[in-house]
Amino acid sequence: MRNQRTAAALALVAAFAWPSRAAAPQASPETAPSPFLAEYREVTSQLIQAAQQTNLAFARLAYLCDTFGPRPTGSTNLEAAIDWVLEEMKRDGLENVRGEPVTVPHWVRGSESAELLQPRHHALRILGVGGSVGTAPQGLTAEVLVVQSFDELKKRGREAKGKIILFNVAFTDYGSTVSIRTRGAVEAARVGAVASLIRSVGPFSMQTPHTGTMSYDASVPKIPHAAVTLEDAAMLQRMQDRGQRVELRLKMKSERLPDATSRNVVGEILGREQTNEIVLVSGHIDSWDVGQGAMDDGGGCLVAWETIRLMKKLGFRPRRTVRVVLWTGEENGLWGAKAYRLRHAGQLSDHVLAIESDRGPFQPKGFAFTGSSKAMPYLQSIARFLDPIGAGELTSGTGGMDVLELRQAGVPAMDLVVDREKYFWFHHSEADTVDKLDPRELNSCIGAVATMAYVVADMPDRLPR
Amino acid sequence: MRNQRTAAALALVAAFAWPSRAAAPQASPETAPSPFLAEYREVTSQLIQAAQQTNLAFARLAYLCDTFGPRPTGSTNLEAAIDWVLEEMKRDGLENVRGEPVTVPHWVRGSESAELLQPRHHALRILGVGGSVGTAPQGLTAEVLVVQSFDELKKRGREAKGKIILFNVAFTDYGSTVSIRTRGAVEAARVGAVASLIRSVGPFSMQTPHTGTMSYDASVPKIPHAAVTLEDAAMLQRMQDRGQRVELRLKMKSERLPDATSRNVVGEILGREQTNEIVLVSGHIDSWDVGQGAMDDGGGCLVAWETIRLMKKLGFRPRRTVRVVLWTGEENGLWGAKAYRLRHAGQLSDHVLAIESDRGPFQPKGFAFTGSSKAMPYLQSIARFLDPIGAGELTSGTGGMDVLELRQAGVPAMDLVVDREKYFWFHHSEADTVDKLDPRELNSCIGAVATMAYVVADMPDRLPR
Repeated sequence: MRNQRTAAALALVAAFAWPSRAAAPQASPETAPSPFLAEYREVTSQLIQAAQQTNLAFARLAYLCDTFGPRPTGSTNLEAAIDWVLEEMKRDGLENVRGEPVTVPHWVRGSESAELLQPRHHALRILGVGGSVGTAPQGLTAEVLVVQSFDELKKRGREAKGKIILFNVAFTDYGSTVSIRTRGAVEAARVGAVASLIRSVGPFSMQTPHTGTMSYDASVPKIPHAAVTLEDAAMLQRMQDRGQRVELRLKMKSERLPDATSRNVVGEILGREQTNEIVLVSGHIDSWDVGQGAMDDGGGCLVAWETIRLMKKLGFRPRRTVRVVLWTGEENGLWGAKAYRLRHAGQLSDHVLAIESDRGPFQPKGFAFTGSSKAMPYLQSIARFLDPIGAGELTSGTGGMDVLELRQAGVPAMDLVVDREKYFWFHHSEADTVDKLDPRELNSCIGAVATMAYVVADMPDRLPR
Repeated sequence: MRNQRTAAALALVAAFAWPSRAAAPQASPETAPSPFLAEYREVTSQLIQAAQQTNLAFARLAYLCDTFGPRPTGSTNLEAAIDWVLEEMKRDGLENVRGEPVTVPHWVRGSESAELLQPRHHALRILGVGGSVGTAPQGLTAEVLVVQSFDELKKRGREAKGKIILFNVAFTDYGSTVSIRTRGAVEAARVGAVASLIRSVGPFSMQTPHTGTMSYDASVPKIPHAAVTLEDAAMLQRMQDRGQRVELRLKMKSERLPDATSRNVVGEILGREQTNEIVLVSGHIDSWDVGQGAMDDGGGCLVAWETIRLMKKLGFRPRRTVRVVLWTGEENGLWGAKAYRLRHAGQLSDHVLAIESDRGPFQPKGFAFTGSSKAMPYLQSIARFLDPIGAGELTSGTGGMDVLELRQAGVPAMDLVVDREKYFWFHHSEADTVDKLDPRELNSCIGAVATMAYVVADMPDRLPR
């Protein structure tokens, strides 16, 4: 029965809405009517409307941010936040609510300062990059060499010995620029530098340093690694360009404590038929240790959580199980995602789709998908239900990091794509706070994820791999 | 001779370019040719072009900002900056370069902290308002009452005793909102509060507190007064709205030292005929004690200074004297402007025009003028030379604070009007740094002020009062 309906539906899609080589001209998916999955029009409209009318998600997000603050792994903040979410999910009536243990690193930032000594005294505002070693207690004092690329550092390698390197690399896009943060300390150590500073990875600053992950390499010494603001990076560059000697005293404390135990938060609505088959919606509950982790990724957690709460509230129990997962330990190594893959290894073949929301809960544009092209007609048809809220785009290639492990295990994966013009203004900084977010945009994200998750969980066919 | 030319010129303006009741339809001043002062077309074009081609003004502004940092009254920073400007002005060949002594207040910020104790521990980023008293060394701990207006505080006056008041007033425009900063401590003390906090006066924040001036009133106790960020003001409001008890520990140190001596920086190009008549161009050299004072008002200083340097460099010696004044002590009480008025009292009747640039050296739009309507035909004609750089607007009512004293003494006054969409993002904060400014916009400001100052200083008629 299910298979017959599938075949019929796919035939309709092929005829009306999905490009094929057979016939031309084709109606485009955007303009053609979408008879396939049309029976979900009413129910998805209900979900979108319910999402747009809720105040609870934003109120919970603000409560999470204000009450627990930043949520780095190993902190009591994070575990208290997780306790609260678990309690609330139970109160919402979700099923199988639990915290699944995950071993996570426990790095703690201590006091940090960078004082310009020459050509004048000035306190720079810095933020150690997450995982950086500290300096000796008295700090280290050295001349600064400003470079604008790894290539320039290589060329000037002989000048670098004993100095503090400042990578003053202008932001183009995150993927291109972030390498100075992840690799800067290694490249600087390779040429004999005693510390490494980066221009914060972001396009705009109001004296705003940004942290994030980094790596060391066993072949070179571990040197302290911190971010300065765009303002100070530009100033040190100008000083060097004037021929002035630039000298800094850098003091950083940090501690790498024994690994801690955190938890992935899991809750479900069990499927009414294919209970073993799972559609997963997710965000990550940990954050860096600054700001409130509101857009990275408290907002994504609320999108995933509210998606499933709304289904429960509206009395929707789809054919398959919908599972919300709030990953822990994303920021410093995807620990929650890795642990989930191991713990649920036997179940991954029944993970029908994994959805992530971690680009900030801004105005949604659609989804980026990685999986079989055979899945696309289904997803395209569902996306049409999201056109009214401007979230009907479907592109290929998810950027979701927490679904990467599942993707590698063969699970079709997608992440919510949003209009995030200013996301990197705030990302990993003290300015990632809930006031930057718009409740209506958050609610549109919820409507989008709820629609996608519900239909995939309920439609007669299992989403093809 | 001069008067005859004036009469003829004014007749032409009345006929072609200046609205009158006599004849209709009138050509508008914007579209009509402006034969009046047309002989200045070539020379003003040279000034504008020279301004657009200079690199020196921006380089000097960056050097000023980077080398001396913020320049509060009483600081060695300010006096070292003044020494450097005086030296450079002499090197430029300006005449009568001098520092004119001004007695200024000397308030020094000490360490400041505000720690949220309830409902959770969190360090707020604060900035004491300039002139605020400190707390006792151990700080003060009290419950917070958040109000959104002076009216609300009055209504809730009975709840305020012994508390810290937070004025969480949303920014509308500076003039309307700034009263919480200037009067907040008095209004809070009046109802028995122990300290007063304000939401920083600005429309946007990345955890950015803003300082500024304030006043106390002898009738009520002096209580500490500080600015919190927009983010934290919103958070404390949400906490109060949830019914949570909000408690803070506030520690602030500050010192009011004996008055210090600073200097107004003065330089001139002596007029070739009416040497005693003065056209004044100005900005203020002092700043608050945070950031670099780049847009408030290092940029204005460079606009005024470069105006007169370009005339010198181009060999222009106008009929009247052009005087650059870089005021000191603007931020905390217009001390330089007041001292100038006293020192030059006998000369004020020969101050033909006083121009100020203190809105940030952004894209210029024109000038705002306060003076006789008889001056308007002249100014309108000059403004036409600025249309090509988009700076030809002429409105009435200068907002210039440093020319206020001169205006009160009868001197016609104007200030440069600019497109300052983001000015109050940075104003009086650590984010007022030179990287926010565009050299081309600075140079357009210079072209605009140079044009206005030169023609008024050189035209045969004295600008009517």
